Amino acid sequence: MQSLQEKASEWSGVSQNDAFEIDNTNLFQKLGLQTFINLSTNFYTRVYDDEEEWFRLIFANSKKEEAIQNQYEFFVQRMGGPPLYSQRKGHPALIGRHRPFPVTHQAAERWLHHMQQALDGVTEIDADSKTKMMNFFRHTAFFLVAGDELKNRNQGVPCKHGASKPAAV
Amino acid sequence: MQSLQEKASEWSGVSQNDAFEIDNTNLFQKLGLQTFINLSTNFYTRVYDDEEEWFRLIFANSKKEEAIQNQYEFFVQRMGGPPLYSQRKGHPALIGRHRPFPVTHQAAERWLHHMQQALDGVTEIDADSKTKMMNFFRHTAFFLVAGDELKNRNQGVPCKHGASKPAAV
Repeated sequence: MQSLQEKASEWSGVSQNDAFEIDNTNLFQKLGLQTFINLSTNFYTRVYDDEEEWFRLIFANSKKEEAIQNQYEFFVQRMGGPPLYSQRKGHPALIGRHRPFPVTHQAAERWLHHMQQALDGVTEIDADSKTKMMNFFRHTAFFLVAGDELKNRNQGVPCKHGASKPAAV
Repeated sequence: MQSLQEKASEWSGVSQNDAFEIDNTNLFQKLGLQTFINLSTNFYTRVYDDEEEWFRLIFANSKKEEAIQNQYEFFVQRMGGPPLYSQRKGHPALIGRHRPFPVTHQAAERWLHHMQQALDGVTEIDADSKTKMMNFFRHTAFFLVAGDELKNRNQGVPCKHGASKPAAV
Protein backbone atom coordinates (compact mmCIF):
# COMPACT_ATOMS: atom_id res chain seq x y z
CA MET A 1 0.00 0.00 0.00
CA GLN A 2 1.31 3.45 -0.89
CA SER A 3 2.02 5.73 2.03
CA LEU A 4 0.44 9.17 2.36
CA GLN A 5 3.69 10.83 1.31
CA GLU A 6 4.11 8.55 -1.72
CA LYS A 7 0.62 9.42 -2.91
CA ALA A 8 1.32 13.11 -2.27
CA SER A 9 4.47 12.96 -4.43
CA GLU A 10 2.81 11.03 -7.23
CA TRP A 11 -0.31 13.19 -7.43
CA SER A 12 1.44 16.53 -6.94
CA GLY A 13 4.44 15.76 -9.16
CA VAL A 14 6.61 17.21 -6.35
CA SER A 15 9.20 14.95 -4.73
CA GLN A 16 9.49 14.70 -0.97
CA ASN A 17 12.89 16.43 -1.18
CA ASP A 18 11.59 19.37 -3.21
CA ALA A 19 8.54 19.73 -0.96
CA PHE A 20 10.70 20.04 2.17
CA GLU A 21 13.35 22.30 0.62
CA ILE A 22 11.64 24.92 2.80
CA ASP A 23 13.64 23.43 5.70
CA ASN A 24 16.99 24.31 4.10
CA THR A 25 16.43 28.07 4.38
CA ASN A 26 14.55 30.06 6.99
CA LEU A 27 11.75 31.66 4.99
CA PHE A 28 10.33 33.36 8.07
CA GLN A 29 13.60 35.22 8.70
CA LYS A 30 13.87 36.07 5.02
CA LEU A 31 10.30 37.29 4.53
CA GLY A 32 9.05 38.44 7.95
CA LEU A 33 5.69 38.09 9.68
CA GLN A 34 3.86 40.80 7.72
CA THR A 35 4.55 39.05 4.42
CA PHE A 36 2.88 35.88 5.71
CA ILE A 37 -0.11 37.88 6.97
CA ASN A 38 -0.37 39.58 3.55
CA LEU A 39 -0.15 36.24 1.74
CA SER A 40 -2.92 34.59 3.77
CA THR A 41 -5.12 37.69 3.60
CA ASN A 42 -4.68 37.82 -0.17
CA PHE A 43 -5.34 34.07 -0.45
CA TYR A 44 -8.55 34.00 1.59
CA THR A 45 -9.88 37.18 -0.02
CA ARG A 46 -9.70 35.27 -3.31
CA VAL A 47 -11.18 32.11 -1.80
CA TYR A 48 -14.15 33.82 -0.14
CA ASP A 49 -14.87 35.69 -3.40
CA ASP A 50 -14.38 32.65 -5.63
CA GLU A 51 -16.78 32.56 -8.58
CA GLU A 52 -16.76 28.77 -8.25
CA GLU A 53 -19.53 28.24 -5.73
CA TRP A 54 -18.63 24.58 -4.96
CA PHE A 55 -15.21 25.72 -3.77
CA ARG A 56 -16.43 28.81 -1.91
CA LEU A 57 -18.96 26.66 -0.02
CA ILE A 58 -16.20 24.50 1.49
CA PHE A 59 -15.31 27.54 3.62
CA ALA A 60 -18.86 28.69 4.31
CA ASN A 61 -18.84 27.59 7.97
CA SER A 62 -15.44 29.15 8.74
CA LYS A 63 -14.86 32.80 9.59
CA LYS A 64 -12.54 34.49 7.11
CA GLU A 65 -10.47 36.26 9.81
CA GLU A 66 -9.96 33.00 11.64
CA ALA A 67 -9.03 31.12 8.47
CA ILE A 68 -6.40 33.79 7.74
CA GLN A 69 -4.92 33.59 11.24
CA ASN A 70 -4.86 29.79 11.30
CA GLN A 71 -3.07 29.74 7.97
CA TYR A 72 -0.38 32.35 8.54
CA GLU A 73 0.35 31.09 12.04
CA PHE A 74 0.88 27.60 10.67
CA PHE A 75 3.06 28.86 7.78
CA VAL A 76 5.17 30.99 10.15
CA GLN A 77 5.66 28.06 12.52
CA ARG A 78 6.47 25.59 9.72
CA MET A 79 8.82 27.94 7.86
CA GLY A 80 11.23 28.77 10.65
CA GLY A 81 9.35 31.28 12.81
CA PRO A 82 7.95 31.12 16.34
CA PRO A 83 5.41 28.36 17.07
CA LEU A 84 2.42 30.72 16.91
CA TYR A 85 0.04 28.01 15.80
CA SER A 86 0.87 25.52 18.55
CA GLN A 87 0.83 28.16 21.26
CA ARG A 88 -2.79 28.91 20.37
CA LYS A 89 -4.18 25.65 18.98
CA GLY A 90 -1.73 22.81 19.69
CA HIS A 91 -0.58 20.34 17.09
CA PRO A 92 -1.22 21.28 13.46
CA ALA A 93 -2.50 17.72 12.87
CA LEU A 94 -3.09 18.63 9.24
CA ILE A 95 -5.11 15.57 8.25
CA GLY A 96 -7.20 15.52 11.42
CA ARG A 97 -8.07 19.20 11.22
CA HIS A 98 -9.03 18.98 7.54
CA ARG A 99 -11.40 16.13 8.30
CA PRO A 100 -14.59 18.24 8.05
CA PHE A 101 -13.71 19.35 4.52
CA PRO A 102 -13.99 17.45 1.22
CA VAL A 103 -10.32 17.64 0.15
CA THR A 104 -10.67 16.23 -3.36
CA HIS A 105 -8.13 16.41 -6.22
CA GLN A 106 -10.29 19.15 -7.75
CA ALA A 107 -10.39 21.12 -4.48
CA ALA A 108 -6.60 20.80 -4.13
CA GLU A 109 -6.10 22.21 -7.63
CA ARG A 110 -8.48 25.12 -6.94
CA TRP A 111 -6.73 25.85 -3.62
CA LEU A 112 -3.37 25.86 -5.43
CA HIS A 113 -4.72 28.11 -8.20
CA HIS A 114 -5.69 30.74 -5.64
CA MET A 115 -2.42 30.31 -3.74
CA GLN A 116 -0.37 30.84 -6.91
CA GLN A 117 -2.33 34.04 -7.60
CA ALA A 118 -1.96 35.15 -3.98
CA LEU A 119 1.82 34.54 -4.06
CA ASP A 120 2.10 36.48 -7.33
CA GLY A 121 0.24 39.36 -5.68
CA VAL A 122 2.67 39.68 -2.76
CA THR A 123 5.64 41.52 -4.24
CA GLU A 124 7.87 41.06 -1.15
CA ILE A 125 8.24 37.35 -1.98
CA ASP A 126 11.21 36.69 -4.31
CA ALA A 127 11.02 34.11 -7.10
CA ASP A 128 13.15 31.50 -5.33
CA SER A 129 11.05 31.61 -2.14
CA LYS A 130 7.92 31.45 -4.27
CA THR A 131 9.11 28.24 -5.96
CA LYS A 132 9.98 26.64 -2.62
CA MET A 133 6.66 27.62 -1.11
CA MET A 134 4.63 26.39 -4.09
CA ASN A 135 6.44 23.03 -3.99
CA PHE A 136 5.59 22.72 -0.31
CA PHE A 137 1.98 23.80 -0.86
CA ARG A 138 1.47 21.51 -3.86
CA HIS A 139 2.87 18.46 -2.07
CA THR A 140 0.90 19.29 1.09
CA ALA A 141 -2.36 19.81 -0.80
CA PHE A 142 -2.12 16.32 -2.28
CA PHE A 143 -0.95 14.88 1.05
CA LEU A 144 -4.30 16.11 2.37
CA VAL A 145 -6.15 14.56 -0.59
CA ALA A 146 -4.47 11.27 0.38
CA GLY A 147 -5.51 11.89 4.00
CA ASP A 148 -9.06 12.65 2.90
CA GLU A 149 -9.33 9.29 1.18
CA LEU A 150 -8.73 7.56 4.52
CA LYS A 151 -12.17 8.80 5.58
CA ASN A 152 -13.81 6.69 2.91
CA ARG A 153 -12.30 3.53 4.31
CA ASN A 154 -14.94 3.46 7.02
CA GLN A 155 -17.53 3.19 4.28
CA GLY A 156 -16.00 -0.17 3.45
CA VAL A 157 -16.99 -1.49 6.87
CA PRO A 158 -19.93 -3.79 6.28
CA CYS A 159 -23.20 -2.13 7.13
CA LYS A 160 -24.73 -3.78 10.13
CA HIS A 161 -27.94 -4.26 8.20
CA GLY A 162 -25.94 -6.70 6.14
CA ALA A 163 -27.45 -6.13 2.72
CA SER A 164 -24.10 -6.79 1.07
CA LYS A 165 -24.69 -10.50 1.64
CA PRO A 166 -27.47 -12.10 -0.34
CA ALA A 167 -30.46 -12.50 1.92
CA ALA A 168 -31.09 -16.02 3.12
CA VAL A 169 -34.25 -17.22 1.45
CA MET B 1 -18.38 21.85 20.49
CA GLN B 2 -15.06 21.43 22.29
CA SER B 3 -11.99 21.64 20.10
CA LEU B 4 -9.38 18.87 19.97
CA GLN B 5 -7.01 20.93 22.12
CA GLU B 6 -9.71 21.71 24.70
CA LYS B 7 -10.49 18.01 25.06
CA ALA B 8 -6.77 17.25 25.28
CA SER B 9 -6.35 19.75 28.13
CA GLU B 10 -9.42 18.56 30.00
CA TRP B 11 -8.65 14.86 29.76
CA SER B 12 -4.91 15.14 30.35
CA GLY B 13 -5.11 17.76 33.09
CA VAL B 14 -2.29 19.60 31.28
CA SER B 15 -2.96 23.12 30.02
CA GLN B 16 -2.09 24.15 26.48
CA ASN B 17 0.62 26.44 27.89
CA ASP B 18 2.25 23.73 29.98
CA ALA B 19 2.08 21.24 27.10
CA PHE B 20 3.97 23.58 24.76
CA GLU B 21 6.51 24.78 27.32
CA ILE B 22 8.82 22.55 25.27
CA ASP B 23 8.98 25.45 22.79
CA ASN B 24 10.54 27.81 25.35
CA THR B 25 13.77 25.82 25.58
CA ASN B 26 15.58 23.79 22.96
CA LEU B 27 15.48 20.28 24.40
CA PHE B 28 17.32 18.86 21.40
CA GLN B 29 20.31 21.12 21.99
CA LYS B 30 20.19 20.38 25.69
CA LEU B 31 19.89 16.59 25.42
CA GLY B 32 21.36 15.61 22.05
CA LEU B 33 20.33 13.03 19.45
CA GLN B 34 21.58 9.96 21.30
CA THR B 35 19.38 10.70 24.32
CA PHE B 36 16.29 10.73 22.11
CA ILE B 37 17.35 7.46 20.46
CA ASN B 38 17.86 5.93 23.92
CA LEU B 39 14.48 7.16 25.12
CA SER B 40 12.55 5.72 22.19
CA THR B 41 14.49 2.46 22.29
CA ASN B 42 13.76 2.15 26.01
CA PHE B 43 10.10 3.04 25.44
CA TYR B 44 9.43 0.55 22.65
CA THR B 45 11.38 -2.22 24.38
CA ARG B 46 8.86 -1.88 27.22
CA VAL B 47 5.90 -1.64 24.84
CA TYR B 48 6.81 -4.70 22.77
CA ASP B 49 7.36 -6.67 25.99
CA ASP B 50 4.22 -5.39 27.72
CA GLU B 51 2.52 -8.01 29.87
CA GLU B 52 -0.79 -6.39 28.90
CA GLU B 53 -1.60 -8.20 25.68
CA TRP B 54 -4.35 -5.79 24.58
CA PHE B 55 -1.78 -2.98 24.53
CA ARG B 56 1.04 -5.00 22.96
CA LEU B 57 -1.29 -6.06 20.14
CA ILE B 58 -1.84 -2.45 19.06
CA PHE B 59 1.77 -2.50 17.81
CA ALA B 60 1.70 -6.05 16.41
CA ASN B 61 1.69 -4.94 12.77
CA SER B 62 4.51 -2.40 13.20
CA LYS B 63 8.20 -3.23 13.19
CA LYS B 64 9.89 -2.24 16.44
CA GLU B 65 12.94 -0.66 14.74
CA GLU B 66 10.68 1.46 12.57
CA ALA B 67 8.49 2.49 15.50
CA ILE B 68 11.63 3.62 17.36
CA GLN B 69 12.90 5.64 14.40
CA ASN B 70 9.52 7.27 13.69
CA GLN B 71 9.25 8.30 17.31
CA TYR B 72 12.70 9.74 17.95
CA GLU B 73 12.77 11.52 14.60
CA PHE B 74 9.46 13.19 15.43
CA PHE B 75 10.61 14.12 18.96
CA VAL B 76 13.90 15.55 17.64
CA GLN B 77 12.08 17.61 15.03
CA ARG B 78 9.42 18.85 17.46
CA MET B 79 11.86 19.67 20.25
CA GLY B 80 14.19 21.97 18.38
CA GLY B 81 16.34 19.64 16.28
CA PRO B 82 16.65 19.07 12.53
CA PRO B 83 13.45 18.06 10.69
CA LEU B 84 14.45 14.39 10.46
CA TYR B 85 10.89 13.16 10.40
CA SER B 86 9.67 15.41 7.60
CA GLN B 87 12.74 14.75 5.46
CA ARG B 88 11.90 11.06 5.48
CA LYS B 89 8.11 10.91 5.86
CA GLY B 90 6.64 14.39 5.34
CA HIS B 91 4.13 15.97 7.68
CA PRO B 92 3.78 14.38 11.12
CA ALA B 93 -0.02 14.58 10.72
CA LEU B 94 -0.37 13.05 14.16
CA ILE B 95 -4.08 12.31 14.04
CA GLY B 96 -4.05 11.01 10.46
CA ARG B 97 -1.12 8.71 11.07
CA HIS B 98 -2.63 7.28 14.26
CA ARG B 99 -5.83 6.46 12.42
CA PRO B 100 -5.12 2.71 12.17
CA PHE B 101 -4.75 2.42 15.95
CA PRO B 102 -7.42 2.36 18.68
CA VAL B 103 -6.23 5.39 20.69
CA THR B 104 -8.55 5.05 23.68
CA HIS B 105 -8.24 6.74 27.09
CA GLN B 106 -6.97 3.43 28.45
CA ALA B 107 -4.37 3.10 25.67
CA ALA B 108 -3.20 6.68 26.28
CA GLU B 109 -2.69 5.95 29.99
CA ARG B 110 -0.76 2.75 29.21
CA TRP B 111 1.41 4.59 26.66
CA LEU B 112 2.13 7.28 29.27
CA HIS B 113 2.92 4.68 31.93
CA HIS B 114 5.62 3.17 29.69
CA MET B 115 6.90 6.61 28.69
CA GLN B 116 7.26 7.68 32.32
CA GLN B 117 9.25 4.49 33.02
CA ALA B 118 11.33 5.00 29.89
CA LEU B 119 12.13 8.61 30.86
CA ASP B 120 13.09 7.50 34.36
CA GLY B 121 15.44 4.95 32.79
CA VAL B 122 17.37 7.51 30.73
CA THR B 123 19.70 9.16 33.25
CA GLU B 124 20.89 11.88 30.83
CA ILE B 125 17.49 13.57 31.08
CA ASP B 126 17.33 16.09 33.95
CA ALA B 127 14.22 16.50 36.09
CA ASP B 128 13.10 19.79 34.51
CA SER B 129 13.31 18.42 30.96
CA LYS B 130 11.47 15.30 32.12
CA THR B 131 8.58 17.39 33.48
CA LYS B 132 8.36 19.41 30.27
CA MET B 133 8.44 16.29 28.13
CA MET B 134 5.82 14.45 30.19
CA ASN B 135 3.48 17.47 30.00
CA PHE B 136 3.89 17.49 26.23
CA PHE B 137 3.41 13.71 25.99
CA ARG B 138 0.39 13.67 28.28
CA HIS B 139 -1.38 16.47 26.43
CA THR B 140 -0.50 14.93 23.06
CA ALA B 141 -1.69 11.46 24.07
CA PHE B 142 -5.13 12.84 24.92
CA PHE B 143 -5.13 15.07 21.84
CA LEU B 144 -4.87 11.79 19.92
CA VAL B 145 -7.70 10.25 21.96
CA ALA B 146 -9.80 13.27 20.91
CA GLY B 147 -8.65 12.72 17.31
CA ASP B 148 -9.52 9.04 17.54
CA GLU B 149 -13.09 9.87 18.52
CA LEU B 150 -13.54 11.71 15.21
CA LYS B 151 -13.38 8.31 13.49
CA ASN B 152 -16.58 7.23 15.17
CA ARG B 153 -18.50 10.14 13.69
CA ASN B 154 -18.77 8.31 10.38
CA GLN B 155 -20.70 5.63 12.16
CA GLY B 156 -23.43 8.19 12.66
CA VAL B 157 -23.91 8.52 8.90
CA PRO B 158 -27.15 6.71 8.07
CA CYS B 159 -26.52 3.34 6.52
CA LYS B 160 -27.52 3.40 2.88
CA HIS B 161 -29.72 0.38 3.46
CA GLY B 162 -31.90 2.77 5.36
CA ALA B 163 -33.09 0.60 8.22
CA SER B 164 -33.14 3.63 10.51
CA LYS B 165 -36.33 4.77 8.77
CA PRO B 166 -39.40 2.63 9.22
CA ALA B 167 -39.96 0.64 6.07
CA ALA B 168 -42.80 1.86 3.89
CA VAL B 169 -45.59 -0.71 4.11
